[in-house]
Amino acid sequence: MKIYNIGIIGCGGIACKMAATLGGMKGVKRYAVASRTLEKAQAFADKWEFAKAYGSYEELASDPEVDLIYIATPHAMHYDNARMCIEKGKPVLCEKAFTANARQAAELLKLAEEKKVFLTEAIWTRYMPLSLKIRELLEEGVIGTPYMLSANLGYVIDRKERILRPELAGGALLDLGVYLLNFAAMYFGKEIASVHSVCQKTDTGVDAQENITLLFQDGKMAALQASIHAVTDRMGVISGDKGHLIVENINNPQSVRILDANYQTVAVYEAPQQITGYEYQVYASLEAIEKGWLESPYMPHAETLRLMQQMDALRKEWGVVYPCDKE
Amino acid sequence: MKIYNIGIIGCGGIACKMAATLGGMKGVKRYAVASRTLEKAQAFADKWEFAKAYGSYEELASDPEVDLIYIATPHAMHYDNARMCIEKGKPVLCEKAFTANARQAAELLKLAEEKKVFLTEAIWTRYMPLSLKIRELLEEGVIGTPYMLSANLGYVIDRKERILRPELAGGALLDLGVYLLNFAAMYFGKEIASVHSVCQKTDTGVDAQENITLLFQDGKMAALQASIHAVTDRMGVISGDKGHLIVENINNPQSVRILDANYQTVAVYEAPQQITGYEYQVYASLEAIEKGWLESPYMPHAETLRLMQQMDALRKEWGVVYPCDKE
Repeated sequence: MKIYNIGIIGCGGIACKMAATLGGMKGVKRYAVASRTLEKAQAFADKWEFAKAYGSYEELASDPEVDLIYIATPHAMHYDNARMCIEKGKPVLCEKAFTANARQAAELLKLAEEKKVFLTEAIWTRYMPLSLKIRELLEEGVIGTPYMLSANLGYVIDRKERILRPELAGGALLDLGVYLLNFAAMYFGKEIASVHSVCQKTDTGVDAQENITLLFQDGKMAALQASIHAVTDRMGVISGDKGHLIVENINNPQSVRILDANYQTVAVYEAPQQITGYEYQVYASLEAIEKGWLESPYMPHAETLRLMQQMDALRKEWGVVYPCDKE
Repeated sequence: MKIYNIGIIGCGGIACKMAATLGGMKGVKRYAVASRTLEKAQAFADKWEFAKAYGSYEELASDPEVDLIYIATPHAMHYDNARMCIEKGKPVLCEKAFTANARQAAELLKLAEEKKVFLTEAIWTRYMPLSLKIRELLEEGVIGTPYMLSANLGYVIDRKERILRPELAGGALLDLGVYLLNFAAMYFGKEIASVHSVCQKTDTGVDAQENITLLFQDGKMAALQASIHAVTDRMGVISGDKGHLIVENINNPQSVRILDANYQTVAVYEAPQQITGYEYQVYASLEAIEKGWLESPYMPHAETLRLMQQMDALRKEWGVVYPCDKE
């Protein structure tokens, strides 16, 4: 069995989480890490037992031993980072939000197709077994015909630079809302008739809180709330004419509870034991690489692009403009 | 101790619920019931042990022994029913939605003030001890500063005439949405900066599903969803920077759970044992009558009117028009 050498670009919180994840996985090696300074990369490599540390992202991407690069930088940097990796022919698992805007996403996806390089978005909830189980349950009709979906995600992150600053592609939408839109997309699909939204902005001009309504062509409605000010319950609820289904923590689904029309719990599905939940997106990437696919069926390119376009449209409505939008 | 003779106008489901409630209360007598036919009233009176049965609402309102009239007819009839009672000088506890539109509400409130008759809206959640406890908890800062409120209410009532027909003041808003708006009003107040909403309509022209956003002047946001197609989880969640508070069933609050910023439950408050929950609005009405008040502090006239105006504005935006709106 081939052992895949994983490289990580960026040394922040999610890079640590991925390093911890890789340590518990099979078939992967914590091979290389890159930061903008060698000291930082070396400290990370020492702590997490990576074989190599690089003081530039390019050096890591140039290492012929690297099999897959996980991009763990803030999302304003994803475009540059991913482009560089793809140009060097390296398969890429790129953190969400995939890019700062849809133009950047389209360019990256086009480049990856041209270069025949695997590229996928690290929107981890898309790859999780429980996420797929929910879709199965809905198809089995456990709640009858679904009509309404509501989901929320909120954390107190209103002091973070990367959230507050437009030049870092800040705001609730790209950090939190992306999970809500993906949740709605996974279960209510992409046949959207119209999108309506309301947002409250920060003094710095990014979105702080929002309520987004998606109306689907078949009459379904999704209501999505995000907040950078409050710790919300992170629940996702899908309601049908025979009952409803509650997903505990849409950001890392722990359980799915199904209630009948009398509010009695009729079934509970727990997430299988996981390392962190990050492992699924890595395994999916390796499967794709092994099979020579250029995208993952869990998160197809078209879906990544559609979600970025959805977020662009929302930001346009709200007047949340990033410097890169003007390029 | 005076025993109050209660009269009920209407013999439907909520009249039964009130009859059952009165049976468990102190200081009240199941005195009289009226329907549009004597047979129906008599059957109800026999079943629920009411002393008198009347074949017209006027007869009941004319009975000098009646101390308080509970109006349990469909909401399209509230205006006519309540006006008649007030003109006869009878104190009124009128089911929600208070009237079909704000014009009717304003007229009723004016008439009650002129005639110096007690009148209040039977929006039962306003009178419940747990509702008041939630406000106290928020004021104590159990979840820090509140920023986001979300609540939903959905039942499969999309085959009911009274819901589907505009002439019966149908739609999700007046039947379900009214609880959502009251929930938001109780905890986030009335200093609303703007209201935004999206609705899906039935073929009959009433609102079937909606997502309503209230933006408050102090930066808070409330996101409210109603549905006549789906059994939703009926939860109300208020989120702050130190945690959140979950109200189980905003339509008849059973418990309030407080979670800290780490999603750990730190306290649970259960509703005190209740008959049905209807008793609180009756006791509040009797207290007001005893004290000579013309309105109840639990649901002041101004608040009833404000909520009706809010619903009028929403319907106007959606193009949900009742015949009585044109009068």
